Parts: sequence; structure tokens; C-alpha cells
Amino acid sequence: MQYFSNQDINKLNKLFRINLINSSTGYKPANLIVTHSPESETNVAVFSSVVHLGSDPALLGFTIRPTTVPRHTYTNIRATGEYSINHVHKNILADAHHTSAKYPAGVSEFSKTDLQEEYKADFSVPFVAGAPVQIAMKYIEEYHIKANDVILMVGEIQGIYLAENLLHDDGLIDIAKAEVATVTGLDAYSVPQCIDERFTYQRPNDK
Amino acid sequence: MQYFSNQDINKLNKLFRINLINSSTGYKPANLIVTHSPESETNVAVFSSVVHLGSDPALLGFTIRPTTVPRHTYTNIRATGEYSINHVHKNILADAHHTSAKYPAGVSEFSKTDLQEEYKADFSVPFVAGAPVQIAMKYIEEYHIKANDVILMVGEIQGIYLAENLLHDDGLIDIAKAEVATVTGLDAYSVPQCIDERFTYQRPNDK
Repeated sequence: MQYFSNQDINKLNKLFRINLINSSTGYKPANLIVTHSPESETNVAVFSSVVHLGSDPALLGFTIRPTTVPRHTYTNIRATGEYSINHVHKNILADAHHTSAKYPAGVSEFSKTDLQEEYKADFSVPFVAGAPVQIAMKYIEEYHIKANDVILMVGEIQGIYLAENLLHDDGLIDIAKAEVATVTGLDAYSVPQCIDERFTYQRPNDK
Repeated sequence: MQYFSNQDINKLNKLFRINLINSSTGYKPANLIVTHSPESETNVAVFSSVVHLGSDPALLGFTIRPTTVPRHTYTNIRATGEYSINHVHKNILADAHHTSAKYPAGVSEFSKTDLQEEYKADFSVPFVAGAPVQIAMKYIEEYHIKANDVILMVGEIQGIYLAENLLHDDGLIDIAKAEVATVTGLDAYSVPQCIDERFTYQRPNDK
């Protein structure tokens, strides 16, 4: 096998290191997070760090580094307390990735791409039209990860919109049928064709 | 679209709710985390919550609820300060999922499955043989997520082993070529066939 020690990693050039470490965890979800400023200027940015934290209460987290690209996301969430998480459908992949470009505050990525805002009753934050899974979120708390100056944002699900025919009888969302992307590293996207295997709840065996 | 408000979600039966919320984030990585007790009893458990926290220093996180299944993972990491993260190759999928069964402390999942321990020079914690990406980790710190009684474990990469021919010239690990799994919800596994699109670094456009 190829081996990189932590000393080797420390000596890598910056981009190589970023690509290696960012792809080391495996597949990641591809999500667009939409926010708005108190002046109702919208912002949309792609994230691959959304993580399930618990089902009761229904909490999701994501990590953000406020001093870099997605700072408008952080500022808006702290100002308004709300955001939406939208899955990246294969049809909006290129525009979704383009939201990683550094636009100044006040410039909505919706105006720079073909991504469309979709407003729904009960929520002042818009969703991304065409996203087969759209989740309305309320900010709960945040944790500053000291070791790396990253913030874990914790939010509670306020509502979930699902495209028709995605839900299995037992509550599982058929992510493959939704034709949404997974990402590895910073920029390698894939739309898996099918869920190959579903397993049952596991109990100890006698082996 | 189908809609579940937070009131609807609160009324769902427990398993439906767990499946729905666990699959709401999209694709997740499938990893086996190996630990050992101070008495060198090994433990291996499947996780879908490993998340990239930063590349410099190279930090990865994962979430764990110490009062439920993977408590041996938590106890061992706190006792020894080390663990390994191993990608789930398609050939070990069923055994990887079986590590979610609740075995008592002192019973190694390696003895209950065909998963094999692989020891390497420099690390006292074993890896999972056949995992195409194997990462040696050192515990750094933890955060108790109060809203949901979950702990975010933060660790630093000590070394990365990669199967041959997985590395792109720019440092990206070819996760698809590694034939490792992604999981949605608790138990729906998929091995994506190829990375469909690779994008470039995005700069603002003039649209």
C-alpha cells in the first residue's frame, strides 16, 4: 500500500494535501444551504459536511469556517436563525458547484447561476427549486472546534419536503431514486445509480 | 411534494422517524472504527458520521452516543488515545454492517465476523485487512452536543495507507476505484460505480 505519515502530510504542497485529506473520509453528501440576510438578500452555498446528529429531537449539523468562503452563510444564520438544506440533484450539479466561488456579500448566487429560489408557506427562507429533498432548519447552537478553528452548527429540522415516490414504507428516503449527488474531496461528484444492498437490524450471533 | 412538519415528525413511530431523519442528509461515508482496550482487547464498529474538519492540521471528526451501541469505541479511545478509520470495501459489506450488533465488552467483533485485524509498524491499534483506505488516528478533543447528548470526537491523522493506484496526481483519492460503500439511513448501502464529474476551482462569473 502507499503510505503517508503525518510528517509526509506536513510536507505536501497545499492543494495536494487539501485533496488528500478532504477525500480521506469517503463519500460525502452534496447539499446547498440557503440563507437570507435581515434585508432579505439570499445566499446559497454548497456544503459536503452536513451530518446527522440525532432523530429525537431531529438535529443536523454542518461545519463551517467563518473566515473563509461561506461566511455569508454563517452571518445570515446567526442574524435570522434559519436556513434550508437542499439536496443537489444531478440536473443542477454544475450550478451547485459554482456556488463555491467567492462572491461578495450582497451578491446572491441565485443571480449568478440558473438555480431558482422556491418559497413555501410557513418559511421565510427559500429552498432550491428542483431539489428532491428540501429541509427547513432552525439554528439551535454552535461549537467552536478549537483544534482547527471550525464551527459545528447545530440545527433542528422544522419541516421536510420530499419529491413524490421517494419514501419507503419504513421511512427511508430513497436517495438513489432522488438522483442526487455525492461528493469526494472538493470537486469530484458522482450520482450513484442504485442502492445495492439493504441490511436488517443486527443482533449478536453465536459464531 | 410530500411534507412532514416538525409536528408530524414528532408523531411518527420511532423506527420510521429514525429512518427518515437518518436518510435526510443524503449519502454518508461507511467506515469501520477500530479501537483496543488497555488490555489489548480489540473492538470494531461501523460508523457513518466521519466528517472532514480540516486539512492543516489534518483533522477528522465523528459523532458517537456513548450510552448506546458503540460505547466500547468511546471508552477505548479515551483510555488509549488512538483508533483507526477503515473504509468499507464491497467485499466486507455484510460483516461491516454486522458490527452494529450489540456485543458485550470484551467480545471482539473480529471474533464474530470474517473481518481480520491487520497490524502495522508504528501503530498499536490494528486496521481492518482489505480496507483500501486505512487511517491511523490520535484523539485530540471532544465536544458534548448538548441539544442531543451526542459527542463529537476530534482526532488528528497520524498516517494514511492507500491501496495501490487510488491516488490522482493532485492528491484526490479515487474512492470509486476503491470500491467502497456509501450508506444512507441506517442500513442502505451502495457502491457507486464511477465518479461522473470533476469540476474546477470556481471563480465568480459575470452573469
